[in-house]
Amino acid sequence: MGVGVGPGDPELMTLKALRALRRADVIAHFAKAGYPSHSRAIIERHLRDGVVELPLAYPVTTELPKCSAAYRDTLGDFYDRAAAEVAKHLEAGRVVAVICEGDPLFYGSYMHVHARLAARFPTEIIAGVTGMSGCWSAAGMPIAQGDDIFTVLPATLSEGELVRRLSEADAAVVMKVGRHLPKLRRALERSGRLPRALYVERGTMAAEKMIPLSAKPDNDATYFAVVLVPGWQDRPGGKP
Amino acid sequence: MGVGVGPGDPELMTLKALRALRRADVIAHFAKAGYPSHSRAIIERHLRDGVVELPLAYPVTTELPKCSAAYRDTLGDFYDRAAAEVAKHLEAGRVVAVICEGDPLFYGSYMHVHARLAARFPTEIIAGVTGMSGCWSAAGMPIAQGDDIFTVLPATLSEGELVRRLSEADAAVVMKVGRHLPKLRRALERSGRLPRALYVERGTMAAEKMIPLSAKPDNDATYFAVVLVPGWQDRPGGKP
Repeated sequence: MGVGVGPGDPELMTLKALRALRRADVIAHFAKAGYPSHSRAIIERHLRDGVVELPLAYPVTTELPKCSAAYRDTLGDFYDRAAAEVAKHLEAGRVVAVICEGDPLFYGSYMHVHARLAARFPTEIIAGVTGMSGCWSAAGMPIAQGDDIFTVLPATLSEGELVRRLSEADAAVVMKVGRHLPKLRRALERSGRLPRALYVERGTMAAEKMIPLSAKPDNDATYFAVVLVPGWQDRPGGKP
Repeated sequence: MGVGVGPGDPELMTLKALRALRRADVIAHFAKAGYPSHSRAIIERHLRDGVVELPLAYPVTTELPKCSAAYRDTLGDFYDRAAAEVAKHLEAGRVVAVICEGDPLFYGSYMHVHARLAARFPTEIIAGVTGMSGCWSAAGMPIAQGDDIFTVLPATLSEGELVRRLSEADAAVVMKVGRHLPKLRRALERSGRLPRALYVERGTMAAEKMIPLSAKPDNDATYFAVVLVPGWQDRPGGKP
């Protein structure tokens, strides 16, 4: 089963996720090779004695260019192996919880395992609070309301595409900010959205940082940071 | 405080929301006048003896046209009164939990109270699992991955706008389906998205219904139904 464990604060895990962890024989978690798993850190206090842990370590994340065949093949092979390891436990009759930061089916690594195994084994998904919900809640920033059009954009888009899509959405969340921050800042400026854009790093976690994007230096954004652009505040009838 | 109680299944409430309900003196919930509150139904089993309940009953929902001044004024007055009632309890030193289906700051009624009171009183937001996460999880449908562009659209848009925006997004969720279903179906067909669109009503609740949109009759969609259009499945390298 795919178990969403929420955006980072262990208290933002659901009751259902907690019960799933308690009944799992095996807890599988993704992480970059050599680094601790974020999802494991969230549920660490709930790890039962004797539970089997199955770390699934990404061989590569940002070392190879994303569009390269080498990147796609390396990751494809990795997901095949990860799915095979999960399958071995399932075939032995064990209950496997693949834990995921945020929500399992919303930009989560779990879905690569899901796509490979869901047709062969009974599968349950436990929805989780997404990272972006954690960010706007920590910021106390209403993001979208009524008939707002809300969009999630990767910062990897070209500046022109970012401008166009930011201009056309009422509310937006931009992900994978990292080294794309200077380009994203220009796109927010050109689309008139810079004044209300908020930069958030590790929302709901102990190391949480948030700062208006207009005040954020360009040189140290992380890949996991998001930029929130609220839609609601200037809509007619929105704010009193 | 604004407390997200999740998409419907009471088990999809977070540990933090549960603790908030336990320490609240007053539990406020929105509902249409004369109807039971959905959010109250989700947390009913956790209502403490002696807790004060503050129902906030919408005077109107779909009876007046949304763009009319009468609608806006009626709702604006209602939110003013709701905020005043919450403020009275806060001024008396009571802890008030305004419970919200899904996530409080993502298309939730709570944000109208938040906008009126957050500057005057210390305010906490507890993020929740959104209704749409509940729907795609119940359906076991991976919605977005990698650099997918994900968009939330109201079905109230014109057919042409729906076609354009569905064509430009990798993944989409369409809300407020109800009587807009025939138009939405045409827009999904014109944008080539109909074959994989899934209609979901009351995801994660006992009365949950889901059916491929292509097989769904036009005549009985509810306002609370959503249509999911997954982005990931036909991306290069996506599915094995």
